[in-house]
Amino acid sequence: MNRIVILGAGNVAHHLFKAFSTAEGFKVIQVYNHKPASLETFRSQVSITANLEEIKPAELYVLAIKDDAIEEIAAQLKNRDALVVHTSGSVGMDVLQKFERRGVFYPLQTFSKNKAVDLKSVPFCIEANNDEDVVILEALARNISEKVFKINSEQRASLHVAAVFVSNFVNYLYTEGEAICREKQVPFEILHPLIIETAEKVTKMKPFEAQTGPGKRNDKKVIQFHLAQLKEEQKKLYSFLTQSIQTLHGKEL
Amino acid sequence: MNRIVILGAGNVAHHLFKAFSTAEGFKVIQVYNHKPASLETFRSQVSITANLEEIKPAELYVLAIKDDAIEEIAAQLKNRDALVVHTSGSVGMDVLQKFERRGVFYPLQTFSKNKAVDLKSVPFCIEANNDEDVVILEALARNISEKVFKINSEQRASLHVAAVFVSNFVNYLYTEGEAICREKQVPFEILHPLIIETAEKVTKMKPFEAQTGPGKRNDKKVIQFHLAQLKEEQKKLYSFLTQSIQTLHGKEL
Repeated sequence: MNRIVILGAGNVAHHLFKAFSTAEGFKVIQVYNHKPASLETFRSQVSITANLEEIKPAELYVLAIKDDAIEEIAAQLKNRDALVVHTSGSVGMDVLQKFERRGVFYPLQTFSKNKAVDLKSVPFCIEANNDEDVVILEALARNISEKVFKINSEQRASLHVAAVFVSNFVNYLYTEGEAICREKQVPFEILHPLIIETAEKVTKMKPFEAQTGPGKRNDKKVIQFHLAQLKEEQKKLYSFLTQSIQTLHGKEL
Repeated sequence: MNRIVILGAGNVAHHLFKAFSTAEGFKVIQVYNHKPASLETFRSQVSITANLEEIKPAELYVLAIKDDAIEEIAAQLKNRDALVVHTSGSVGMDVLQKFERRGVFYPLQTFSKNKAVDLKSVPFCIEANNDEDVVILEALARNISEKVFKINSEQRASLHVAAVFVSNFVNYLYTEGEAICREKQVPFEILHPLIIETAEKVTKMKPFEAQTGPGKRNDKKVIQFHLAQLKEEQKKLYSFLTQSIQTLHGKEL
């Protein structure tokens, strides 16, 4: 049995705690957080502590805490023979270099408190300093998800940037689209099916091949028609992205 | 019985022809296209012609043709008492002003030949010059879709621009995300669940409220970490969008 201590009590910690509870061969024996209040929801289910001195011996320590706190909290762990992992997408494995056995256990998904996430379909990116620990993390990950990938720190850094493009920036474009609709009292829900279809399409074909629109076609009449409707900032964004699409697709034609 | 003549033989014409075939109270009696070759797939199912002189009398003419051709083709229709509609998102109803009874029948979705689309969930935006014709178009649209909206030309123009933001531009961001992954041999499929989740989220909450990421948080460390990994053009795009997110969310904080 691999005993696990989770450090952290945020969204990721909560989701992992729940998922680990049914994982064969693993058992969460303690949850730590520096703020005692946020441990309350764990109290009835597992041993809790807000004191790093009281951390129990375990085979695996999972640091599900803010990026900036990982190195500092890890430094205070006394069990130097255990496997220590963090769950961050943007922090390298080397931040844990004081530990011979170190790794990363990164679920690539946006977690929010109010929305249930089915971890089964969440990709887990794992990395460890030696092959035996990769096997352990893989076993744990496969217990809770169908999508497990071995990803090194450099690759994970790229994934993290790419995620900003396909999620954070995409959501910003949704925001602009919604604003354009709102101004003319057009229900944004008219665009929902197109949004879903556009997303689903790139799970089946390359985004490069899925590109359509006036930018790709270089349809100057429609582009002018669109620009004339936009505010200054939106115009800049529209021109910038249209130019980028034309540069990308022009190159390859 | 409302007899329909479809003018055009592209993706939209094909999808509409199929959907109209089961619409109660309507019947497609002819399909026209200027290129006879593209009419072949219709030959066994309906009367076809490549000659505008041979267009049959009908109650409804549906122009599912390129934006630039709408006015010219419409001008050659002899039946001035019929209802004449086009299917374009970016062309006003007034391009059909020679017809007392004019309208728009615009399905807001990306159609491609190789991919089946369930029209039931495709929003249809309808507009007509008089209330009786709105009723006719609404009846036709409700026969084939569960989502029918009365949208005037100005609103439709906004929808068309907004669609570029939430679909064409979004797809471009997917393309950049895929390129970043490809460079480091990271499978793009790791990002598929995040892409779907990000899209589905804005069908349930406002995109403004769904915004997350280092730009929104103004996490300078992560932003620098990301910029350092990007190529010149990607850097510009990243900085531009991060700035836009901060301007938008800063204003409202």
